Amino acid sequence: MSSTFGTIFRVTTFGESHGGAVGAVVDGCPPRLALTEADIQPQLDRRRPGQSALTTPRGELDTVRILSGTEQGLTLGTPIALVVANRDTKPGDYADMADVPRPSHADFTYQMKYGVRAASGGGRSSARETIGRVAAGAIAEKWLRLKAGVEIVAWVSGVGAVEAPDLAARGLTRADVDANAVRCPDTAAAKKMEAEILAARDAKDSIGGIITCVCRGVPPGWGEPVFHKLEAVLAQAMLSLPATKGFEIGSGFAGTRMRGSVHNDPFVQKAGRLGTKTNFSGGVQGGISNGEPLVFRVAFKPPATISQPQQTADFNGQPVTLEAKGRHDPCVVPRAVPIVEAMAALVLADAALQQQARG
Amino acid sequence: MSSTFGTIFRVTTFGESHGGAVGAVVDGCPPRLALTEADIQPQLDRRRPGQSALTTPRGELDTVRILSGTEQGLTLGTPIALVVANRDTKPGDYADMADVPRPSHADFTYQMKYGVRAASGGGRSSARETIGRVAAGAIAEKWLRLKAGVEIVAWVSGVGAVEAPDLAARGLTRADVDANAVRCPDTAAAKKMEAEILAARDAKDSIGGIITCVCRGVPPGWGEPVFHKLEAVLAQAMLSLPATKGFEIGSGFAGTRMRGSVHNDPFVQKAGRLGTKTNFSGGVQGGISNGEPLVFRVAFKPPATISQPQQTADFNGQPVTLEAKGRHDPCVVPRAVPIVEAMAALVLADAALQQQARG
Amino acid sequence: MSSTFGTIFRVTTFGESHGGAVGAVVDGCPPRLALTEADIQPQLDRRRPGQSALTTPRGELDTVRILSGTEQGLTLGTPIALVVANRDTKPGDYADMADVPRPSHADFTYQMKYGVRAASGGGRSSARETIGRVAAGAIAEKWLRLKAGVEIVAWVSGVGAVEAPDLAARGLTRADVDANAVRCPDTAAAKKMEAEILAARDAKDSIGGIITCVCRGVPPGWGEPVFHKLEAVLAQAMLSLPATKGFEIGSGFAGTRMRGSVHNDPFVQKAGRLGTKTNFSGGVQGGISNGEPLVFRVAFKPPATISQPQQTADFNGQPVTLEAKGRHDPCVVPRAVPIVEAMAALVLADAALQQQARG
Amino acid sequence: MSSTFGTIFRVTTFGESHGGAVGAVVDGCPPRLALTEADIQPQLDRRRPGQSALTTPRGELDTVRILSGTEQGLTLGTPIALVVANRDTKPGDYADMADVPRPSHADFTYQMKYGVRAASGGGRSSARETIGRVAAGAIAEKWLRLKAGVEIVAWVSGVGAVEAPDLAARGLTRADVDANAVRCPDTAAAKKMEAEILAARDAKDSIGGIITCVCRGVPPGWGEPVFHKLEAVLAQAMLSLPATKGFEIGSGFAGTRMRGSVHNDPFVQKAGRLGTKTNFSGGVQGGISNGEPLVFRVAFKPPATISQPQQTADFNGQPVTLEAKGRHDPCVVPRAVPIVEAMAALVLADAALQQQARG
Repeated sequence: MSSTFGTIFRVTTFGESHGGAVGAVVDGCPPRLALTEADIQPQLDRRRPGQSALTTPRGELDTVRILSGTEQGLTLGTPIALVVANRDTKPGDYADMADVPRPSHADFTYQMKYGVRAASGGGRSSARETIGRVAAGAIAEKWLRLKAGVEIVAWVSGVGAVEAPDLAARGLTRADVDANAVRCPDTAAAKKMEAEILAARDAKDSIGGIITCVCRGVPPGWGEPVFHKLEAVLAQAMLSLPATKGFEIGSGFAGTRMRGSVHNDPFVQKAGRLGTKTNFSGGVQGGISNGEPLVFRVAFKPPATISQPQQTADFNGQPVTLEAKGRHDPCVVPRAVPIVEAMAALVLADAALQQQARG
Repeated sequence: MSSTFGTIFRVTTFGESHGGAVGAVVDGCPPRLALTEADIQPQLDRRRPGQSALTTPRGELDTVRILSGTEQGLTLGTPIALVVANRDTKPGDYADMADVPRPSHADFTYQMKYGVRAASGGGRSSARETIGRVAAGAIAEKWLRLKAGVEIVAWVSGVGAVEAPDLAARGLTRADVDANAVRCPDTAAAKKMEAEILAARDAKDSIGGIITCVCRGVPPGWGEPVFHKLEAVLAQAMLSLPATKGFEIGSGFAGTRMRGSVHNDPFVQKAGRLGTKTNFSGGVQGGISNGEPLVFRVAFKPPATISQPQQTADFNGQPVTLEAKGRHDPCVVPRAVPIVEAMAALVLADAALQQQARG
Repeated sequence: MSSTFGTIFRVTTFGESHGGAVGAVVDGCPPRLALTEADIQPQLDRRRPGQSALTTPRGELDTVRILSGTEQGLTLGTPIALVVANRDTKPGDYADMADVPRPSHADFTYQMKYGVRAASGGGRSSARETIGRVAAGAIAEKWLRLKAGVEIVAWVSGVGAVEAPDLAARGLTRADVDANAVRCPDTAAAKKMEAEILAARDAKDSIGGIITCVCRGVPPGWGEPVFHKLEAVLAQAMLSLPATKGFEIGSGFAGTRMRGSVHNDPFVQKAGRLGTKTNFSGGVQGGISNGEPLVFRVAFKPPATISQPQQTADFNGQPVTLEAKGRHDPCVVPRAVPIVEAMAALVLADAALQQQARG
Repeated sequence: MSSTFGTIFRVTTFGESHGGAVGAVVDGCPPRLALTEADIQPQLDRRRPGQSALTTPRGELDTVRILSGTEQGLTLGTPIALVVANRDTKPGDYADMADVPRPSHADFTYQMKYGVRAASGGGRSSARETIGRVAAGAIAEKWLRLKAGVEIVAWVSGVGAVEAPDLAARGLTRADVDANAVRCPDTAAAKKMEAEILAARDAKDSIGGIITCVCRGVPPGWGEPVFHKLEAVLAQAMLSLPATKGFEIGSGFAGTRMRGSVHNDPFVQKAGRLGTKTNFSGGVQGGISNGEPLVFRVAFKPPATISQPQQTADFNGQPVTLEAKGRHDPCVVPRAVPIVEAMAALVLADAALQQQARG
């Protein structure tokens, strides 16, 4: 089950960072959806390396090709195979590291689990694996937008010590988010974040960050208790992304310090529907969407691969000083924004179809 | 898929809070495991209401019965059906609330999703649903302990504004945890937490909290990238619990403020294995266990049902003042400790068997 | 995955022949379906032993109890737990057989697979396991009937050398089928079948048979290519039943001897829909229902447990003469009729809901 | 779930007959298996059209490419993406048929199910879809051979009225099978079958056939009762193939006419293991392999697309005479031999890994 996600709208990803290609197969996408590569490429471009001084200069074009599942620009309801070739592979960069597992990277655990690992670039644990997710997510997102009017917008809300103000209620668009390279729509915070990232980079170091995501227009009734509650599947989706360490929805960890009388979201009549006055629940109650915007946050650790020397041990336990080569982002969150959106779209499309099956 | 969890070690739960029974069917449990009700009852007793002044006085004995899957005290490798009868049901307590969805409870969303809902007690969204999980988890846990030497211990690390010091490295036992009613092994913090809970109760209010869980003895290699990474499935498991709003592993959200040079866990030779000097990763790298203890935290919101009057609206959007009856915990975390342990055990047993299938 | 069947309408069965109970949990049943035990009991009664001289005299009442998932006679959309107690257990009957695997029974393979097996009565390989399927199938069937007007009728079409004429197009009802004890609606054939069964019984022997099943009213569009084609899932469902050795749909094996010009089903306009003139396809094309009746046949071998002495070997390979005790049917097909119907209903309800999810 | 098969060793296929490519993603293949395209191509070549006068002249090379999941000729334990480009597409051949659903083909049902269908060549219902299965099956088969010594050999045992003698116990090899174009190892029967096929072709007609498959070396213990019994999953696998109408294992439908005293397979000591004297069970008891060879048969109907005129109706119900163009096999069984072997391999590899997970 490791590389397949979803019950009805299902995506199976494949590909290592330095093999022939990466991609995905989307099964269960509804038929008769207008779909070409042009619907998918924009989110891949937002995820692509080399967009700004804040990201790795690895020069991939990441051009997607649809191999199956559509005809004359419409989905057939059959599996949609999506392929992106790997081009700018430099396996040589990793030759020194064959005997030394990089600290906090997956070299050691892959070796222990599989008894073998991709000799270069992290293989399947590379962020490049997320290309298939982003491509698949773009399809899910288009369907959600056309079918249910759902809008998904994520942005960078924290980098290192810099935290943006709460923007969840602002009705942000992707254009707002992309207004700066760091993808934080609060200009003042964005500048500080950029400085934080550049400082880390200049120190041959890396820095963590937080992404906030809002999904608007989700109708009441999505999410499948008890084990596939909407927040549970969102949490799985987000924690399945490389470098993530935490997930919270609505009040999250801050909510643990609150009393029920404050935290409870009272019902109020809204235009055409019963809504809630506050949204500490983050758009879910009992694992099911309640019609309010979904609001969740994802914690990303600082990237493990840094250029400064590190004292560590090789596979034999011998102390060694490791100096990593390769091209890496000092902070993943600006490029992770479309990835978070993609996973949210995959979760929601699947939840929508499951609810539609309710009978 | 909603009430089934796991790929090989699979549990399916059933039961509403006020129906005939609650329980679970465990499929895929390895054969030849010594198992009787006595292996399961202790964790149910820790979860049971009425244990102390901190919990609801609802008087359930919650005695489990094994209906299948064992013979002469050994598992057969076939489905194990576990049933706990509901006895102390008082549907009348809920009669007033038929027309008014309780704020931040699941009444509204169940009604919107299913077009019907249990008239009393929250039905499937009740904490009583977790009985099946705890019973199933006790089986998983026994297998993990005997087969792999895994130990799982959770405790209350936060209640409201009170936070316990970091106890993850202390080698705590369940006896340590159960030394006080609040289930926080730090005595000073426990006293403050107890006061916090009692204050909330006396104010007809409720309060949130945090549970920390440590899993020791997990060998390297468990967890199935990319969508069933160990932390992803743990996150799903925990966020599928009632009242949870957040999950973090290792450094979690605090890690977003750190630099990679600090956050990275350097490898060092340990007794008989390659380990890491620090454990900001929380025991996982690339979604796979690395041999260090798993350490994660789960955020629980304040219980939605409080006894003080609340201004809200009924299903028709008419303003109404709601005064809840029924018997409810002012804070769920003391009783949620065995539930978190159970879900962790279910995740780990399934991951262990999947790794064993690797071939 | 062994004891769970279905993707959306899912059933998990449990229980050994001689443990505390057998039963099932149905997850994914649509909400707001009127449902009480009275909807389920009739099919259990048709499956029950002791109905006639043709079946085992084991005296079980097989009374079903619904433990969850309904309230005030309506399904809630939550898991429905169904339990039937085992009462008339006589483990002593099987004591002699502990060291000798019964020929063509599952004693040997269960022991090899699990390293342990139920000491008595076949455990999970007993026909008693099908009780959970029949109970769950009765729910599926009710939903199919109310929601889509689907009618499922199976009957005995062959016993030993006796074969009934083709009755698939006759519009048979269950009353027609139950008009005689052998459940073959062709009276002449039924008499010969009954004689065949009684002759086998009197010879301390057993005899095989065939069940034909027709599902009327299935609309076009059910079935999920390519691996969950309707006939593929029906085949799995039927071959998962004890004692089955074959499955064919439409022309089946006879179709292999035909030419395409004869076998093809030409389209013709029928009342309100496009139909086919003939139905060699058996109601499916490309794995999807085409609106014509589904027609399939299931082969059942003669029961393995016979009362006459058999030359065989014990677990150590030592030659031994085995004389079985216990109470067994000389022919399973009369009682298997409701079981085949139940599995067909489970397949169709799941296919219907999957198609409904298509979006 | 429609295009994914398997629980641990999982294959997801994609591709229409006339799109960019067909292929598969294999997830869960054990790591460290030596694997290159050369392991896969031979079975694709056996499946390829244009091999003899008996098959369609469509000139595809069907060259497979591995896009991921291996490095330096070893599997990594990660998803293996397999792609075969479509080259010789002639959509024009199908232009006339846009308004007329071909009798006994999937045009009508796809249109009813999805509301759209591939305008040419049958799309996903084309035999070309099986390329992904064959490629994936070749990997499964290699692992089974190296890991467990399993050998899988299928052959044509019936074409039209011609039936080959029972060859299941002869220890046939693929070389034996490939000794003639019809792939029946009995020379006399093969000649008659060839004549039958050519006669059908010359009459612009088609003819059905039967494939028998034997799997030798399967150890006792594979298969997952109750819903994933080995024969149940084999039945699903085979009935998921285009043009199949029946499946039987061991005695199959003939077994329904036998008495238990004859049908039962007595145990006897064999070299190093407990075996059975006869094999009416076909290698399974209670859904679990017993160490004897698996023997099963699959019924294939005559291909639906024939070149002679057919009286049928268009989508509007108007009578019409259809004359099909396109290139089609008059009989599918010679080319279906490697496809049946592939599906058997996928079933067995998955069953083996599930048993290995037993704990």
